[in-house]
Amino acid sequence: MGAYETRLKIRFGQVDAAGIMFYPRFFDNFHVVFEDMFSELTGKPYTHLLENRRIGFPTVHIETDFRRPFRFGEEMRLVLDVVEYGETSILFRYRGFHPDQDEPSVEAQGKVVVLDLDAFKPVPIPDDIRAILDDLSIGDGSR
Amino acid sequence: MGAYETRLKIRFGQVDAAGIMFYPRFFDNFHVVFEDMFSELTGKPYTHLLENRRIGFPTVHIETDFRRPFRFGEEMRLVLDVVEYGETSILFRYRGFHPDQDEPSVEAQGKVVVLDLDAFKPVPIPDDIRAILDDLSIGDGSR
Amino acid sequence: MGAYETRLKIRFGQVDAAGIMFYPRFFDNFHVVFEDMFSELTGKPYTHLLENRRIGFPTVHIETDFRRPFRFGEEMRLVLDVVEYGETSILFRYRGFHPDQDEPSVEAQGKVVVLDLDAFKPVPIPDDIRAILDDLSIGDGSR
Amino acid sequence: MGAYETRLKIRFGQVDAAGIMFYPRFFDNFHVVFEDMFSELTGKPYTHLLENRRIGFPTVHIETDFRRPFRFGEEMRLVLDVVEYGETSILFRYRGFHPDQDEPSVEAQGKVVVLDLDAFKPVPIPDDIRAILDDLSIGDGSR
Repeated sequence: MGAYETRLKIRFGQVDAAGIMFYPRFFDNFHVVFEDMFSELTGKPYTHLLENRRIGFPTVHIETDFRRPFRFGEEMRLVLDVVEYGETSILFRYRGFHPDQDEPSVEAQGKVVVLDLDAFKPVPIPDDIRAILDDLSIGDGSR
Repeated sequence: MGAYETRLKIRFGQVDAAGIMFYPRFFDNFHVVFEDMFSELTGKPYTHLLENRRIGFPTVHIETDFRRPFRFGEEMRLVLDVVEYGETSILFRYRGFHPDQDEPSVEAQGKVVVLDLDAFKPVPIPDDIRAILDDLSIGDGSR
Repeated sequence: MGAYETRLKIRFGQVDAAGIMFYPRFFDNFHVVFEDMFSELTGKPYTHLLENRRIGFPTVHIETDFRRPFRFGEEMRLVLDVVEYGETSILFRYRGFHPDQDEPSVEAQGKVVVLDLDAFKPVPIPDDIRAILDDLSIGDGSR
Repeated sequence: MGAYETRLKIRFGQVDAAGIMFYPRFFDNFHVVFEDMFSELTGKPYTHLLENRRIGFPTVHIETDFRRPFRFGEEMRLVLDVVEYGETSILFRYRGFHPDQDEPSVEAQGKVVVLDLDAFKPVPIPDDIRAILDDLSIGDGSR
């Protein structure tokens, strides 16, 4: 497969006084595609992971390049894939495109830890999640 | 027609420490359905109104009943219609439903003024907008 | 005493494309003064109520008049008092003033229910909270 | 001087379902200390830069380490200083501390471009701003 993708509109509540997306709001959008990917690829709502399986994914590091602004009303094509993962952590990549562009207008790499929400400590990535990450891996040759 | 309707998912970034939608976030959702309604029914992005026609709709009054909480991951069916309008103001109604419910879980009436964004004063509702409001009116018998 | 008051600056992240406070953000400010009032008047952080005493205050109704916009960088003097309370509910009043104004630029009345967060049902207002509400009551003659 | 510092409380509207600060909200706090620093050190509200001098500071890159979570009600001591600057860009450092900690719980480096908001192109850093940046520089020996 290679990547999970969604489209989001830039909302009035997300833009600043210059009419462009206020940079902290990009991270809200990143979380939206993250939620939707897990919901769709596990076949259960993302909350199932949190509430039933008690697994969370706190972000421990993220770096982001903002290349072209998004204006109110524009659409963002948001693409999520996986750069790499280890025993208990995952490095995701987020790329936001203007619909008519091939180069991402915003690009981030964010590392999350897989956390047992009861013990509040890192745990190995469960097998079914690992299978999803493999599907989303950049280097899997399918993109 | 009688009403404009959309479906939104409750996002992780919108819920509070109890896992339910933080009440100020409802108003963000109200604005989303407002933007989408104007975009779809005028056939042009909502920004066209603001940027090209220089018309804005500041909220001057809103009252809201919160009846049942929305939890993270739940879907909100959000229905927008028009209670009444005057020369330069419009009273919208927002109703948010849990998907399996007939009674709204949140209900608001919000009054906006139609503002000339250059003169920064109220102006009469333009004819094409008035036609849309007629279509969305509660009392038009079509619902 | 009669009222609890704080001052907040309007932040870049709270204004819209017109440079004025986006109306949903007012409710965030209302919650800030609410948190600070409880922290200061109970002598313990507001979280103590939620986490130790397991009491919450979900908003069930709020109505708001927006009279004059707040621009980015302006200061809001935000005044909280109590209109009335019953066995298990409280009606607060929020008034936001421009620093040089005697009339509120925004004014709201919001009703909260006093909730047992474990049983998730309304409970009678505890005595120490009731004493605070008495101090904050509009009709106590002290304002 | 060496650094600009402020203290902010973690607000109910900033925490997630686990009661800890949702990571996108850190960036809102970073912007708050940024606004306050400019207001205090230029002696004029930050808006003066935007509105009168028509200079803006869009973020083009930011990388952030989240080391320890902040819980609702906790205080963040937020320290802003300058790593380096060039002709038309500035690299700021943001460090958020728990009050009783010497090591930052969150740390970011964010690069902004100095933008002429009318021409919408980068401009050389004005002299008075440069003087402020010198005061805030990490390497100035004064911290």
